[in-house]
Amino acid sequence: MEYIKREKACEILESGLTELIEEIELGFKQLAEGKAVSPPFINFSTPGLAGLRGHVHFKAGYVEGDEYFVFKYSAGFWGNKKAKINEPTNTDFFIIFNALTGKPEAFIEGGDFTLTDYRTAAAGAVSARWLSNENSSVIGVVGNGVQARLQVIALQEVRPIKTVKIWGRNPEHVKEYIKWMEKRLPNITFQSCKTIKEAVEKVDILITATPSSQALVFPEWVNKGTHITAVGACGPTMQELDATVFGKANKIYADSIDACVVNGDIHHAIEEKTITRKRITGELGQVIAGMVKGRENKDEITIIDLVGLGVQDAKVGNWFYKKYLKAK
Amino acid sequence: MEYIKREKACEILESGLTELIEEIELGFKQLAEGKAVSPPFINFSTPGLAGLRGHVHFKAGYVEGDEYFVFKYSAGFWGNKKAKINEPTNTDFFIIFNALTGKPEAFIEGGDFTLTDYRTAAAGAVSARWLSNENSSVIGVVGNGVQARLQVIALQEVRPIKTVKIWGRNPEHVKEYIKWMEKRLPNITFQSCKTIKEAVEKVDILITATPSSQALVFPEWVNKGTHITAVGACGPTMQELDATVFGKANKIYADSIDACVVNGDIHHAIEEKTITRKRITGELGQVIAGMVKGRENKDEITIIDLVGLGVQDAKVGNWFYKKYLKAK
Repeated sequence: MEYIKREKACEILESGLTELIEEIELGFKQLAEGKAVSPPFINFSTPGLAGLRGHVHFKAGYVEGDEYFVFKYSAGFWGNKKAKINEPTNTDFFIIFNALTGKPEAFIEGGDFTLTDYRTAAAGAVSARWLSNENSSVIGVVGNGVQARLQVIALQEVRPIKTVKIWGRNPEHVKEYIKWMEKRLPNITFQSCKTIKEAVEKVDILITATPSSQALVFPEWVNKGTHITAVGACGPTMQELDATVFGKANKIYADSIDACVVNGDIHHAIEEKTITRKRITGELGQVIAGMVKGRENKDEITIIDLVGLGVQDAKVGNWFYKKYLKAK
Repeated sequence: MEYIKREKACEILESGLTELIEEIELGFKQLAEGKAVSPPFINFSTPGLAGLRGHVHFKAGYVEGDEYFVFKYSAGFWGNKKAKINEPTNTDFFIIFNALTGKPEAFIEGGDFTLTDYRTAAAGAVSARWLSNENSSVIGVVGNGVQARLQVIALQEVRPIKTVKIWGRNPEHVKEYIKWMEKRLPNITFQSCKTIKEAVEKVDILITATPSSQALVFPEWVNKGTHITAVGACGPTMQELDATVFGKANKIYADSIDACVVNGDIHHAIEEKTITRKRITGELGQVIAGMVKGRENKDEITIIDLVGLGVQDAKVGNWFYKKYLKAK
């Protein structure tokens, strides 16, 4: 079995992002067409350290016709930080299996800027390609972590981005974000915002990518024509968009409706009765497959809630390992 | 991450069987007491080779209080044999994770005579300890594969075995079985049986350990006082005991009632309406925990259907890795 180090994974992902966006788009379409195996996860908790229980998730996926199927372990052990031991709070790795023989072929180290981060960013770009105005050039970003970076990097592959307005809770982190991003995308102007309102107003696309557990974005700030990609909230207690933002949206999409009604932002909007499940226009894959309409005019406000699906893991793993073998 | 080779795994398991039986017994008890996490499996199929689809299973488990939690991959790719490629038809491996930090600590190679085979054999011994007559000395074995070997090796740890009567479809394989077993257990007499009837009649304990998909054992051959451990049939299409054998039994047990009513021999007896779910006396763990009665007199016929549970994987993985670290 190949053991692929994090550094190697980062390198392949960074240089292959354009291709990966196409792969992830294809995966969502295949899911809508019933070709993807995206079985329920195995989840449980263990004692963890310092009184903070560890949460573990085992996921697996396969798309009929692909060379490889994929297993992914991901876990949150916040006690590692509290107990000050030298282990990451978030651990993850992939295992790649041969779909013809069942053989485990590769173990891929996880961590920041590896497969999960990139497949999540690619889903944001695919969403924008299908739901935002084509000439979108001004972007608002709420958050300044890894995902807030990769979302913009992926987005500028599909839209002519000129300006990014960024808000983060800690001004020092925002400064560091802008420095890092300017080096990576020198043709884009990055502006620090003093308030969330500032980052949300007058943008073509808004990305929310924080681990917030309370609403940050309110409807009065959202302009006509804005497309919102809400990618931060992926569990039932997490939230970035106030429920009333959904009331203002012309169209609401999800990566998976079943997953979003129990997790993330749509979940809260339904709980607070701002919307019902029926108000959800459809899934991203259905839009790509032509089964559901996307944006119909430049003034619509669209929202997509992305919680992350097994089919994305299946596609990124399959694509990544083929790419790795070719480069060897 | 430690990489533990099959040879090393076999060595530790062989020398530690006495201990492992206690661990597995504890696991069943903990399951009955609600301390074990034994979540549903992830199962799907992939193309495989030579027109035979591959079947993959991802399992995970944890027992509260244990140092490690466990992930297990197991797969059947029969196309590998048909296509004559040099890959096993059955693949499996374990990954051991630290329950305090979430860190993956070890990868353990699978194959014959590794963790799955031993934890299955240990469950047979635990069943016999709680359900068979204490002075059981004559054993019938239907089957001659790895499990038909390990079941006897585990059983003689808990019962004073003198004679083993063995039947297998292929006389050459039976000969080889006896040769192998006599070397391993020189104080036990092994007798080759010409018919299944011969192996079933006049025994204290009967073990069925074949991959059969049709009934092999019929009630008219089963003596008073016999305990039957049915371990071969672990899927819905597999069967070893004719449904009418359950009609003759005084008490019927399962490792998991929920699992056995959709898999294995109990499943067929229910489908054929020989018994109803209510006729099942209880689960092995409930007997160990004192929640359900075991054998009450020497004449009762008892049957236990074992399909294999996540808690066994959790216990064998946790125990094995601690043993491995100690021996290092």
